[in-house]
Amino acid sequence: MMLEQLKNEVCRANLLLKEYGLITLTWGNVSGISEDRRYVVIKPSGVSYAEMTADMMVVTDLDGKVVEGNLRPSSDLATHLELYRNYPEIKAVVHTHSRWATGTAQAEQGIPCFGTTHADHFYGTVPCTRHLTEQEIKNDYELNTGKVIVETLNELKIDPMAVPAILVCKHGPFAWGKTPEKAVENALVLEECAYMSYIAKTLTDGNVAPAPQALQDKHYFRKHGAGAYYGQK
Amino acid sequence: MMLEQLKNEVCRANLLLKEYGLITLTWGNVSGISEDRRYVVIKPSGVSYAEMTADMMVVTDLDGKVVEGNLRPSSDLATHLELYRNYPEIKAVVHTHSRWATGTAQAEQGIPCFGTTHADHFYGTVPCTRHLTEQEIKNDYELNTGKVIVETLNELKIDPMAVPAILVCKHGPFAWGKTPEKAVENALVLEECAYMSYIAKTLTDGNVAPAPQALQDKHYFRKHGAGAYYGQK
Amino acid sequence: MMLEQLKNEVCRANLLLKEYGLITLTWGNVSGISEDRRYVVIKPSGVSYAEMTADMMVVTDLDGKVVEGNLRPSSDLATHLELYRNYPEIKAVVHTHSRWATGTAQAEQGIPCFGTTHADHFYGTVPCTRHLTEQEIKNDYELNTGKVIVETLNELKIDPMAVPAILVCKHGPFAWGKTPEKAVENALVLEECAYMSYIAKTLTDGNVAPAPQALQDKHYFRKHGAGAYYGQK
Amino acid sequence: MMLEQLKNEVCRANLLLKEYGLITLTWGNVSGISEDRRYVVIKPSGVSYAEMTADMMVVTDLDGKVVEGNLRPSSDLATHLELYRNYPEIKAVVHTHSRWATGTAQAEQGIPCFGTTHADHFYGTVPCTRHLTEQEIKNDYELNTGKVIVETLNELKIDPMAVPAILVCKHGPFAWGKTPEKAVENALVLEECAYMSYIAKTLTDGNVAPAPQALQDKHYFRKHGAGAYYGQK
Repeated sequence: MMLEQLKNEVCRANLLLKEYGLITLTWGNVSGISEDRRYVVIKPSGVSYAEMTADMMVVTDLDGKVVEGNLRPSSDLATHLELYRNYPEIKAVVHTHSRWATGTAQAEQGIPCFGTTHADHFYGTVPCTRHLTEQEIKNDYELNTGKVIVETLNELKIDPMAVPAILVCKHGPFAWGKTPEKAVENALVLEECAYMSYIAKTLTDGNVAPAPQALQDKHYFRKHGAGAYYGQK
Repeated sequence: MMLEQLKNEVCRANLLLKEYGLITLTWGNVSGISEDRRYVVIKPSGVSYAEMTADMMVVTDLDGKVVEGNLRPSSDLATHLELYRNYPEIKAVVHTHSRWATGTAQAEQGIPCFGTTHADHFYGTVPCTRHLTEQEIKNDYELNTGKVIVETLNELKIDPMAVPAILVCKHGPFAWGKTPEKAVENALVLEECAYMSYIAKTLTDGNVAPAPQALQDKHYFRKHGAGAYYGQK
Repeated sequence: MMLEQLKNEVCRANLLLKEYGLITLTWGNVSGISEDRRYVVIKPSGVSYAEMTADMMVVTDLDGKVVEGNLRPSSDLATHLELYRNYPEIKAVVHTHSRWATGTAQAEQGIPCFGTTHADHFYGTVPCTRHLTEQEIKNDYELNTGKVIVETLNELKIDPMAVPAILVCKHGPFAWGKTPEKAVENALVLEECAYMSYIAKTLTDGNVAPAPQALQDKHYFRKHGAGAYYGQK
Repeated sequence: MMLEQLKNEVCRANLLLKEYGLITLTWGNVSGISEDRRYVVIKPSGVSYAEMTADMMVVTDLDGKVVEGNLRPSSDLATHLELYRNYPEIKAVVHTHSRWATGTAQAEQGIPCFGTTHADHFYGTVPCTRHLTEQEIKNDYELNTGKVIVETLNELKIDPMAVPAILVCKHGPFAWGKTPEKAVENALVLEECAYMSYIAKTLTDGNVAPAPQALQDKHYFRKHGAGAYYGQK
């Protein structure tokens, strides 16, 4: 058996989604990529969280070919792979249908940085992608979902490690990070930011301003980068 | 004793309603129909979930006559029976007063398909029925509730297995499925879709568009029908 | 020691408030009246739910004089007593600051009967009282809170057993019933109805119609009175 | 080891934040000051609540110099210290990103006293501070956050023990009290008041009036000061 540690991490991260209340039924999936970036470990499709174990995790190569495991990989595999292929700094990907992030994606709205909770984790707006075209939906839908994520980040010149989450229009959130656990934390932060942004938007009829740039800078960079002083050394 | 396995399934599905947070006090009921479609097993009326056991389940025939059990069947029995009589593919029915679906029914609104969470489970809008007339309320109310559900599905040309849930105007949700557990899952999905649709509607002053048809098709048919590729074989 | 069974019932009902999620910190109280209507058993003031036991319950007479117990009674005692003195059919009273009922009272709005969940338990609108006058607040505030409840029920010709709950303007809900447990159930139902009415009101910009009278009649009377057929005999 | 009792209290109060549902991940901190007001005990920065123990608490002097402990203090330490230096009656400070209070701060709104739940604990509006200037953010941000809190309380002539909480604009809530536990209780009350004020504001399109002053006086002073009669002696 290969990649046992990564399978454990990916399985635990999937269960963490449940613990954080981000998952209904089987609506979500986490994957991680091996250090050499040759293999991806991902949740099997449609398996209940109650019965999930590390040895059920599916191993594929970067083309999506299953190289170990008896179960089908998550149907969103191709989206994960597109992110891995484009961003060498991404080591884990997560997809959920968490309530507030998904409701915001259904409203076709991004999540601007309205306060420090957001700025502590995301440097700027978490965008909502454009709609996929009918052709993009009909052929290679999951791959094209990954492509529209990459296109959105590129067009907005977003560093995926500075804004490690996105809303796919009419669909829901994807998040990522340096470990499966960290990717799941980003999905949780996104859900909280979506919730708070809902409160701020509805209290103001939508007329809420983003946090001043200096405040966004301060909070983001006290937790990230060379000058960070949050947390332990 | 007859139909012990079905009684167990129906009892477990009733308890699952509680576990999923869809039930306050005794507000809900699940039934299932026997393979030969001669008998229905349903929750007894007004019994607390804490003390519910499989042998309390009531067995009736398709006319609602109790054929086994010492307790009265759920007062909504006649609604369930009308669904069984009209749709041979329905094998279990559930009724709840879950918060977001019920609040939406009180607002007399349906739940359009605003995103993929919905499209994964329901092929198109979950409609809200018309009001019952005063006569329909006064005589055979529960039967007429079933009839207005059937009428709504017929008029909108909805396949009840493609949209296995409905909102009864000023009342609340009914859902159904191929097993009691599946019917309860559909009730849970409906509640989540109602919650998300609330978020999307209130973020946009009600001006939220349905998901594009191609996206609805893609998500629905990757989970249902001959071309499905979600889940395990 | 007197009234031990009632003390147990009142204590259990107070703890049920916590279990139902209707209570933050010590914000709530339940009382019950003895069969002969000479004594009232009520929660002590400001005692934590974690350490509450039946022998802490305070016994008073109908004038509010403590006749047994070492602790001060709930500061809302005089409101409870006014309800007992006016309505011989009320055997238990409960007050909470449950979130949705209290937020609705802060908005100075009643809870119309928007659907069957409401009609199953309350026959018509749960009203919001008028403001108390400055004089009513300054002198005998808790007594006057009871009086404004009675005044509101009288003016609207409401039978307190048909609508066993009310919102006190800018304050929060009171509910009552035939037993402490039943009064707490009514407080729970009120909270759910307040929540659902919020959903229905905000989905419609406040333009939501009450349920048709025939539907209200049907649901209320299938659970209450001589023709009831809900629940077990 | 110094200040062991205070470390226990501060640690327990931090854990209470989690128990009350006010904390996501590590977003929050509680501190307490020694009786002689020479030392402050505060949560270490970025430590998970699951692994937090009393001996991890950090001791600093009033200038923020660590005098005991191997971990870095919370990054918000300087805000806490500014409150201790200005208000000798404050013995504990708490900061959270609780959802409704933070969403309200993102909307740049205060929490007026809309009802008795608020008046029982806060005497008047819980204000939202002004924005910090770019200079205040760039240099000594956490200290300046404390200063803008003090400025706001001074300008509004607010006694910090009568309104033991504030919203920092685009950031979130701070609360305080006479003990770490009491400060956390105030943070919980603030969150509930923020939630209820959201309900009242959105039910009325923002047109909700504060509770009459006489009602605010009655509720506040029946729980606080010489004439208080709530709770036990």
